[in-house]
Amino acid sequence: MKIARFIVDGFACYGQVEEAEVRAIQGSIFGDYRVTGLTFPLSRVKLLPPTQPVNFWNIGLNYQHHLESRVEEYGEGLRERIKHLNPFLKGSGSSIVATGEAIVIPPGLPDFIDYEGELCIVIGRPAHRVSPEDAPDYILGYTIADDVGAGPVWFHGDFTNWRTKTSDSFAPVGPWIETEMDPHNVDIIVRVNGHEEQRGTTRDMVRNCYEIVSGISRYCTLHPGDIISTGSPSPSRPLKPGEVVEVEIPEIGVLRNPIVSAPAS
Amino acid sequence: MKIARFIVDGFACYGQVEEAEVRAIQGSIFGDYRVTGLTFPLSRVKLLPPTQPVNFWNIGLNYQHHLESRVEEYGEGLRERIKHLNPFLKGSGSSIVATGEAIVIPPGLPDFIDYEGELCIVIGRPAHRVSPEDAPDYILGYTIADDVGAGPVWFHGDFTNWRTKTSDSFAPVGPWIETEMDPHNVDIIVRVNGHEEQRGTTRDMVRNCYEIVSGISRYCTLHPGDIISTGSPSPSRPLKPGEVVEVEIPEIGVLRNPIVSAPAS
Repeated sequence: MKIARFIVDGFACYGQVEEAEVRAIQGSIFGDYRVTGLTFPLSRVKLLPPTQPVNFWNIGLNYQHHLESRVEEYGEGLRERIKHLNPFLKGSGSSIVATGEAIVIPPGLPDFIDYEGELCIVIGRPAHRVSPEDAPDYILGYTIADDVGAGPVWFHGDFTNWRTKTSDSFAPVGPWIETEMDPHNVDIIVRVNGHEEQRGTTRDMVRNCYEIVSGISRYCTLHPGDIISTGSPSPSRPLKPGEVVEVEIPEIGVLRNPIVSAPAS
Repeated sequence: MKIARFIVDGFACYGQVEEAEVRAIQGSIFGDYRVTGLTFPLSRVKLLPPTQPVNFWNIGLNYQHHLESRVEEYGEGLRERIKHLNPFLKGSGSSIVATGEAIVIPPGLPDFIDYEGELCIVIGRPAHRVSPEDAPDYILGYTIADDVGAGPVWFHGDFTNWRTKTSDSFAPVGPWIETEMDPHNVDIIVRVNGHEEQRGTTRDMVRNCYEIVSGISRYCTLHPGDIISTGSPSPSRPLKPGEVVEVEIPEIGVLRNPIVSAPAS
């Protein structure tokens, strides 16, 4: 089942997506809920990011192909990094935008961004020190992220990657959550201005979703609605304002965001 | 005025602290509210972290003395880092604990932690691209954090500092918010087991609170309740389970947390 969060007539709510319609959900998608008889055309609602995570975790270098290309760029030392799980946090709140919303490059960063199309885990209930075997019980479903970055790593002294990775709108997530799918056998396709740029598969992950949930939960409790983006299959190229980037995982849907420059003033 | 968040009889609410009592607040501390006539003895309530931030920002190396000691340890290259504002995120949710709660060292990390006593800014309303001059209008008040870290930087391949900085309970914050004080002229005192270990002053900050709020808000919107911890005046020493660490800023209060080891199972 596909669960979307959306606004209609000024109200934010969850609903079940059925073809071109969304059927309102009553209750909490992290607890008891029921799908109502109330439907809206998808064309009439504004989709929101599928959750408001307490924490938005990201996994770097979780695909061998992506790692190898980075090793060429940054040296063999990088291999040491993927021996251990090394998630990083992107901000919640204004960093996260929905499908259809613009990725806005702020003044002070270079006028291009890198895309990274990624499968995301959505946590369904509090996970504290869970095993990989039990991890599926703590997962509500899966969605898509574009792990946007601006400029090269450590651009202009940005040692903590805060501006380059977490500026407002640099974390598009959506379009919605798919609760029934095998996360380890799906394609991730990226298109720019409608042309396919990249195609990978989650079969090539270094650590799978259950290992990631288990690994983070050993130290940091995962909360209902928390999102974990599981890494990009390969490196990307810089995109300019005016371009439109789409990330598709056919079993879920398409996350589509135009790129714009913010006014300087 | 001192504003605390607390639980009494199972209900979480805000209140104004007056000596040994807390007077319940009705409404939102980030909008319209009134202080009621309902009071509780502080001894009867359980204090909570003063807010539930969307994002919990931290500033590293914001005091010259702290920077110099790290340069001795890690080399001159570190100086480059403080030329630019380099905030990092700690997790929200389970990372943050209140005064009185334990700092719990999880299995898998070395059995000691470093304390860092810091002044925190609490954001009062959404701040997007505000100037240092206007920043005070966006600040609700100030509180205290202990920026707990476990082991040396990059311990056991922890390149993103996620376990060493953001494990559950590694972000004690409190005891409450002080809304009327000059943040740039207060002492930060750290005691371990009742003995003073460290005394610094916010007069020695490299970047002041208003520059920090302005700097982050150029790229990342700050949300009501967001916390920014502004750095430790000096480096600390490792503390063991069984020890108790207190951070005091006399104008605010005392943040007090015992250190314990989590059971391995």
